[in-house]
Amino acid sequence: MKIIIVGATGTIGKYVTAALQKDHEIIQVGSKSGDIQLDITSPDAIKQFFEKIGSFDALISTAGDGHFGPLGSMTDTDFRKGINSKLMGQVNLVLQGQHYINPKGSFTLTSGILSEDPVVYAAGLSAVNAALDGFVRGAAIELDNGVRINAVSPGVVEDSPGYFPYFPGHIPVKMDRVTQAYLKSVLGAATGQVFKVF
Amino acid sequence: MKIIIVGATGTIGKYVTAALQKDHEIIQVGSKSGDIQLDITSPDAIKQFFEKIGSFDALISTAGDGHFGPLGSMTDTDFRKGINSKLMGQVNLVLQGQHYINPKGSFTLTSGILSEDPVVYAAGLSAVNAALDGFVRGAAIELDNGVRINAVSPGVVEDSPGYFPYFPGHIPVKMDRVTQAYLKSVLGAATGQVFKVF
Ligand SMILES: NC(=O)c1ccc[n+]([C@@H]2O[C@H](COP(=O)([O-])OP(=O)(O)OC[C@H]3O[C@@H](n4cnc5c(N)ncnc54)[C@H](OP(=O)(O)O)[C@@H]3O)[C@@H](O)[C@H]2O)c1
Ligand SMILES: NC(=O)c1ccc[n+]([C@@H]2O[C@H](COP(=O)([O-])OP(=O)(O)OC[C@H]3O[C@@H](n4cnc5c(N)ncnc54)[C@H](OP(=O)(O)O)[C@@H]3O)[C@@H](O)[C@H]2O)c1
Repeated sequence: MKIIIVGATGTIGKYVTAALQKDHEIIQVGSKSGDIQLDITSPDAIKQFFEKIGSFDALISTAGDGHFGPLGSMTDTDFRKGINSKLMGQVNLVLQGQHYINPKGSFTLTSGILSEDPVVYAAGLSAVNAALDGFVRGAAIELDNGVRINAVSPGVVEDSPGYFPYFPGHIPVKMDRVTQAYLKSVLGAATGQVFKVF
Repeated sequence: MKIIIVGATGTIGKYVTAALQKDHEIIQVGSKSGDIQLDITSPDAIKQFFEKIGSFDALISTAGDGHFGPLGSMTDTDFRKGINSKLMGQVNLVLQGQHYINPKGSFTLTSGILSEDPVVYAAGLSAVNAALDGFVRGAAIELDNGVRINAVSPGVVEDSPGYFPYFPGHIPVKMDRVTQAYLKSVLGAATGQVFKVF
């Protein structure tokens, strides 16, 4: 399969890339890193990206940021960082990628545990992660030609110790478990699912 | 209590207003209707609104639109209608209202069944409704002074027959059940909850 991995060089993306690259043609994408550069916060850049890449079989996104900070001083601008990057960046990969993906292809997005198990400073990310899970359920029933879409929702991962102080009582999840969820989405047959890894 | 109801003149809002206005001071708000006009898609207008209103005890929002249309032709601009209105409109009522609400006050937002039980043409609203539910869970653990926040998530309501053709197999919910969920949020003690009325 020809598989696009947006965020291929990241903490999670590099494991997913390693797991798939023996058997598949991987296009590694990052805003600064990878084989091809794409900033997913720009809908125009996404359009140009697909025009260049053409058809593909699977797209995995392990990219997208959001604001992390106190609710008490959070502004519209702060909140929209996650909307514009992690939410609309990934949504636009699907809205535009649906016109280039091969029949029976798949989209796999990344949300996260904060949708349902919040931590202090992360109200914006709770919203964005939940939105991605909702989007996947809604989009799955409309994609044509057997195209599938799922989200992987990881807990805080073992390779991100910098986040641990903000996740009291959370059990970091093994990179291998997280990686397997992406493989389940791409190589399996499910659609409209949120694969919780926590 | 001094209760702000944004969307007080709407299909759902007018029932909530009727149920609360005997015992409470209600400020009815709409973009064109009500006692005070406010367009919740404008963060600046929300700021000016709270500066004018001052302190209050509860804010209920039964307002906010989104795009309804096929995923196959959905654009970033379409998707952002719901982001800018139903999602950020309600989020900004909380981000700014938190600085004016009295101790032990409450915010009650409106999401909807599409977060988990999608229909065709509503991928954007599935995302927005889920985002609101996630936001409420995240914000609840940070609001100070005993301030609470919940969402009411209605199914398609009996007074909106125009929507029924788009909700095959959905059982329209009684206006009285929907209304009671808002009373539970405002007059009860729960926080961080999504009251599902479906
Ligand atoms: N780490 C965790 O514990 C954890 C837990 C749950 C969920 N998540 C979610 O999983 C996703 C990946 O997390 P991570 O920790 O692996 O992140 P990371 O280590 O920061 O890696 C991010 C990856 O995405 C790329 N990227 C960043 N911004 C981009 C943009 N605007 N356009 C295109 N590519 C972009 C980066 O490459 P460039 O630098 O070249 O742009 C990099 O390859 C995030 O959405 C995060 O919220 C992470
Ligand atoms: N009806 C249903 O079956 C149903 C089911 C589930 C969820 N919901 C959700 O519940 C909410 C209310 O639905 P509804 O059917 O009661 O809607 P509605 O009948 O269209 O009423 C909307 C109310 O919000 C006000 N409003 C609209 N846009 C506004 C803006 N930009 N700023 C401030 N006020 C605004 C309207 O007043 P003005 O005209 O003066 O602006 C009106 O009072 C919506 O978010 C909807 O998605 C509805």
